[in-house]
Amino acid sequence: MFITFEGIDGSGKSTQIKLLADALEVDGRDVVRTREPGGSDGAEAIRRLLVEGDPGRWSAETEILLFTAARRDHLERLIEPSLADGKIVLSDRFADSTRIYQGAARGELRDIVDRLHALMIKREPDLTIVIDMDPDAALARGLARGSGEDRFEEFGAAFQHKLRAGFQALAKAEPDRVKLVDGDRDVEAVAADILAIVKAHLP
Amino acid sequence: MFITFEGIDGSGKSTQIKLLADALEVDGRDVVRTREPGGSDGAEAIRRLLVEGDPGRWSAETEILLFTAARRDHLERLIEPSLADGKIVLSDRFADSTRIYQGAARGELRDIVDRLHALMIKREPDLTIVIDMDPDAALARGLARGSGEDRFEEFGAAFQHKLRAGFQALAKAEPDRVKLVDGDRDVEAVAADILAIVKAHLP
Repeated sequence: MFITFEGIDGSGKSTQIKLLADALEVDGRDVVRTREPGGSDGAEAIRRLLVEGDPGRWSAETEILLFTAARRDHLERLIEPSLADGKIVLSDRFADSTRIYQGAARGELRDIVDRLHALMIKREPDLTIVIDMDPDAALARGLARGSGEDRFEEFGAAFQHKLRAGFQALAKAEPDRVKLVDGDRDVEAVAADILAIVKAHLP
Repeated sequence: MFITFEGIDGSGKSTQIKLLADALEVDGRDVVRTREPGGSDGAEAIRRLLVEGDPGRWSAETEILLFTAARRDHLERLIEPSLADGKIVLSDRFADSTRIYQGAARGELRDIVDRLHALMIKREPDLTIVIDMDPDAALARGLARGSGEDRFEEFGAAFQHKLRAGFQALAKAEPDRVKLVDGDRDVEAVAADILAIVKAHLP
């Protein structure tokens, strides 16, 4: 089972992935935690090209190609082999992030993202958890993290509001796959909701 | 005017590009020499991912995405601005290399290469010079060069024969754009042929 976590920056995805992984492991499940961009050796090398250097280093189109190259490597080298071994894969971001971020930046890019996905990636997650929360609170949390990889956290509040709307629209468009979880609550309440959704989907 | 040089490894492309650039500059033309993968800062960074490391580091599909990302950057940052300035751009390899190399490695990849090109690159050269020569002589010359970036020169003679056939088929399929030059002659004779072809195409 392939589960992805999506949402705006600072929405608590990595904390929730850790809590979910712990809960599933207590249940005896074999869990692989990963993230995008990155997640495999090659994809991590491509990630460094994406997150380091000048923000204007790449055009949106080149950036989409690099994201897709990293995703293809991640899929081939980590996700698919792990699923074939019967593991549960939890990924912090996947194709939906590229769709929503690029679409929010320049609407006409969404079509390019979709065509590249159809040609080179094809796979969708079995389940996608969107942690939905107020961008102002999330932004403050994200910027406070100081990861040094802050290219994607520097867009400002207006852009984060567009992203939130994009993720909400995705959940409406694909209700079977994409589940919205209210992230404006304490960590344990959010984790409990996520665990319930995942358990309902597990075979 | 955008002119590309293609051919198997060791066919003398870089020598011929230098001679052509010198001849055009003597004529008062403004010439930019470049190469793929690479040619712009971003594309050179992607080139390093492609030519360094283990030969099995990338799948063919990921490799094609990285080549396309590098090409998009090269096109945006160097080729198109140079052409807009009225310069003649001479590139050691371009999209035809990806078509022929990937197609020779696994025939079904050609379709992926063509779709990615149609989606993300679109531009074709105004003129492509294919230096056609005996792979055994070219291979010996290529391996002797010892560039350290020899991933693409390690395929062996049988593969180089497939590449030669691929470039010959390309010249047959697109006779207006792609010109075959016999590279099994001394450097000056090859250079004279190339200069004559280019002069016939210059405005």
